[in-house]
Amino acid sequence: MSSGYRFYERASKAYYSHPHLSKLLVVSTISGGGLLAFSESSPLRSTYAADVGDIKKKKVVVLGTGWAGTSFLKSLKDPSYEVQVVSPRNYFAFTPLLPSVTNGTVEARSIVEPIRSIVKKKKFDVQFREAECYKIDTQNKKVYCKSTQESNLGGSEEFTVDYDYLVIAMGARSNTFNTPGVVEHAHFLKEIEDARRIRRTVIDCFERAGLPSVSEEERKKILHFVVVGGGPTGVEFAAELHDFVIEDLAKLYPTLKEHVKITLLEAGDHILNMFDKRITQFAEDKFQRDGINLKVGSMVTKVSETEISTKERDTGKTVSIPYGMVVWSTGIGTRPVVTDFMKQIGQTNRRVLATDEWLRVEGCDSIYALGDCATINQRKVMEDISAIFNKADKNNTGRLKVDDFKEVINDICERYPQVEIHLKRKQLRNFVHLLKNSQGEDELDIEKFKLALTEVDTQMKNLPATAQVAAQQGAYLAECFNRMKICETYPEGPLRFRGTGRHRFHPFRYKHLGQFAPLGGEQTAAELPGDWVSIGHSTQWLWYSVYASKLVSWRTRVLVVSDWGRRFIFGRDSSRI
Amino acid sequence: MSSGYRFYERASKAYYSHPHLSKLLVVSTISGGGLLAFSESSPLRSTYAADVGDIKKKKVVVLGTGWAGTSFLKSLKDPSYEVQVVSPRNYFAFTPLLPSVTNGTVEARSIVEPIRSIVKKKKFDVQFREAECYKIDTQNKKVYCKSTQESNLGGSEEFTVDYDYLVIAMGARSNTFNTPGVVEHAHFLKEIEDARRIRRTVIDCFERAGLPSVSEEERKKILHFVVVGGGPTGVEFAAELHDFVIEDLAKLYPTLKEHVKITLLEAGDHILNMFDKRITQFAEDKFQRDGINLKVGSMVTKVSETEISTKERDTGKTVSIPYGMVVWSTGIGTRPVVTDFMKQIGQTNRRVLATDEWLRVEGCDSIYALGDCATINQRKVMEDISAIFNKADKNNTGRLKVDDFKEVINDICERYPQVEIHLKRKQLRNFVHLLKNSQGEDELDIEKFKLALTEVDTQMKNLPATAQVAAQQGAYLAECFNRMKICETYPEGPLRFRGTGRHRFHPFRYKHLGQFAPLGGEQTAAELPGDWVSIGHSTQWLWYSVYASKLVSWRTRVLVVSDWGRRFIFGRDSSRI
Repeated sequence: MSSGYRFYERASKAYYSHPHLSKLLVVSTISGGGLLAFSESSPLRSTYAADVGDIKKKKVVVLGTGWAGTSFLKSLKDPSYEVQVVSPRNYFAFTPLLPSVTNGTVEARSIVEPIRSIVKKKKFDVQFREAECYKIDTQNKKVYCKSTQESNLGGSEEFTVDYDYLVIAMGARSNTFNTPGVVEHAHFLKEIEDARRIRRTVIDCFERAGLPSVSEEERKKILHFVVVGGGPTGVEFAAELHDFVIEDLAKLYPTLKEHVKITLLEAGDHILNMFDKRITQFAEDKFQRDGINLKVGSMVTKVSETEISTKERDTGKTVSIPYGMVVWSTGIGTRPVVTDFMKQIGQTNRRVLATDEWLRVEGCDSIYALGDCATINQRKVMEDISAIFNKADKNNTGRLKVDDFKEVINDICERYPQVEIHLKRKQLRNFVHLLKNSQGEDELDIEKFKLALTEVDTQMKNLPATAQVAAQQGAYLAECFNRMKICETYPEGPLRFRGTGRHRFHPFRYKHLGQFAPLGGEQTAAELPGDWVSIGHSTQWLWYSVYASKLVSWRTRVLVVSDWGRRFIFGRDSSRI
Repeated sequence: MSSGYRFYERASKAYYSHPHLSKLLVVSTISGGGLLAFSESSPLRSTYAADVGDIKKKKVVVLGTGWAGTSFLKSLKDPSYEVQVVSPRNYFAFTPLLPSVTNGTVEARSIVEPIRSIVKKKKFDVQFREAECYKIDTQNKKVYCKSTQESNLGGSEEFTVDYDYLVIAMGARSNTFNTPGVVEHAHFLKEIEDARRIRRTVIDCFERAGLPSVSEEERKKILHFVVVGGGPTGVEFAAELHDFVIEDLAKLYPTLKEHVKITLLEAGDHILNMFDKRITQFAEDKFQRDGINLKVGSMVTKVSETEISTKERDTGKTVSIPYGMVVWSTGIGTRPVVTDFMKQIGQTNRRVLATDEWLRVEGCDSIYALGDCATINQRKVMEDISAIFNKADKNNTGRLKVDDFKEVINDICERYPQVEIHLKRKQLRNFVHLLKNSQGEDELDIEKFKLALTEVDTQMKNLPATAQVAAQQGAYLAECFNRMKICETYPEGPLRFRGTGRHRFHPFRYKHLGQFAPLGGEQTAAELPGDWVSIGHSTQWLWYSVYASKLVSWRTRVLVVSDWGRRFIFGRDSSRI
């Protein structure tokens, strides 16, 4: 292979992975002289396009338009795919603002972006189908879909879509833990429609409590709002509801204010238990000051039409409390279609769909799963320990010096991220130190090597089911698809310890950018990267600015910011619409 | 009665009817000297307040929060009433913008104002009840109400409200003329919820038409939008829908554009038949240019789940057309509770509740009706012709000179507004000319008088069922209530021709301020007072500014104007929420 050709190939690779580099390339190749023919991007592109025209386009089917699906779609750039998106919702919703929608701090329409607006901007073939996938046929590489429109247009349309690659990003559903009466009587807070229904119900409760025929006792019941689940969503909703009552409804329904009661039920010991202890403490104190009735160690056993029953851990007794509205926000469960699919592919004893570190569904070919419907099954070091040792032991001596590992260290750390976490935790500078430290010797055999790495796998943690994870996974997978061809020739992932060569791609690595917990009254707590904790008014402004910048389009950005402005000036609207 | 006391009374009268005069009054009384004690407004007010405290407050019950009810509530200022408002909607909706809500030119929430925000600003006792009145008991002066909240709070609450004065402003419902299938399959366009449902359905139709399993024929059916009724609402909706398709949906659903068809069915000869002919012509031409399929002389006989059947006047044949969505906008009918009430009070052979010129329900004591649920039964001159003659004939001579009428002319013109319309039509300068003209003589007896006025009653027309009429009636009635006490002592209405003295109040007079017909594509037609007709872009801007200024509060004004701005910048949203 001539060096000229190799240069072309490298330039082409760089160009496709970093299209913004094309200008830079032009300059460098001109200065290099002789290779002027390759310096223009258009011939390159047209050659490429011709290639694409010749071969049949690969069909990519994306199921879902939540964080993962939309992020995948937005980041996908390679025109050599034919994409079909199937989702019962023809919009993407910026879910972190859902609690704000429940009482009109922002409007539902401000936090949604039509998928077709995103599709429209794509330079290649993307089709959107508003339908629900109800079955995946891995044998024939087909998904079965049915329409979800409500209008009087006859029964539901059914159709199938063929795929070469399937991206499952269907999210999750609310988890009731099979508690009786929850589905029938409680509100969830997962979809736009849920948030709107909650808003209407809150106003309904106030209007009803204001009727002259309602008894004092009944009034108290109607104005008792119960939130189940002390996670970020439940806490934020309780806080937002409290603000809505204090700032707006108290003025409009002055006689009812004293009857309002907000109760937050949490089965564990503390609310916000995934956050830093300082934040939990601050939130609990603030809720107490605000008069929000916080009950921890309180497990809901039943929801009837008028009462919610809880079992108190301290006393062991079951208590029933009358309520006006219950909002259920305890966690997520798997959608039936995903459960069916898991059975089909033999993942029967799992809670959610398991994928490898490249987001490929385990036991499947060409199927990827990301977001809340999936979890990454991180490979354990111990499973591959002999393979790793052998890879380093090039000469098959059975004994290795610590320095012999130098060549594979980076690959080990990339393939098994728990190693790095372990090092950080033990405050060790690098892998070599870990090996040295435990032995004190400079040479080790397989047994000693195992011993040194025993604890490493305990550092493995599942990623949280958050928007942040889903969005990063979507972008990651799209990038893999964009670089599929190039990486087949030039794999860029870590060494295959159990095989030969390298993995095609770097495995997915989650970068935690921090987490907010809005607590009402313009107070927000935040856990930022590097164990920083920030609480208060300034954090609220940080929250505003981060959320404004994260919004999916300029349209939603302007709408949400103007909604905030409206709320400051006019308050929230209490019309029952 | 001393002149000093009379001055006080007059000043007081002027003060209460024109509170903004108080400053002016102070100045004039100071310059008058001696009456300084009356010059301050606070002692006046406190005396008055004490008066009010002594007597029992009169209970006013207002049914409805539409244009009439809300306008009444906003204009009512006299604190000597205890007001209860009963309505199933806890908000006022600016209905002229409803067609714009159907496709997101403005948002539903921007055109509503919570009634409680209006109530909050009142300085006196106003209670709002979100409930529906289902029965009026005139014997015991009670209205029966039931709650309308949807939540799982048990059955509906029932209660009664006592009244001294009842203001019926319940509006009307859509009139289906008992056409089979309309209630089941068509959409109406009267309430906020209707507009939102239409918006969702339009998007549903587009999404469904985009599914791969839908046949070409089926696709055409789904994208066929039928509007029934060529009145201003139907025409505006058809125009707005056309804009939505052309400006927004065509870009998002590029393959579907060619299949879209909008049909407007009108049973009469022309659309917009209450407007000037030039406007009708312009609208019909514009629709033809836009490709909106306009069918006049087409009477809908049946709506099935998939087809709409019409009888064509020209051919006499019945035609059935498949459709995706039907919007029914043909006129208004009476609500069941009003029909029941009419039976109860003996108004059995009428279409709507009849009132006199002071908006009092005929045959009832202390019950008023206004807006779309009522019509003013204008008294005919011929009914009272002898009484009028006698009133002018002070000396009972049986013969009167034309000049003798001078004293009662104003009263006649006020009591019988048809007289003035007749004069204008005949291009006569005044009533004296009418009498002179027909006879040529200067003296007339009762028979000649009758002859002169024969044609006058033909000029009587019912007021249109518009927001403008309802709003003016509400404000008028509130002003009567505000001045009830003063006008009992100092009646200000016309002479009672059949009795003695004067009527307490001036009768209601509608002032027509013009009418708009938005035709899409930034084109609006307007009929302005004085037979002016204006059509085009500039009228659209007039429409924008008039509607912005008419909106009920600063909040709605800002919201609607910013919605317009958003639409200009970002287009309409197509998310199915």
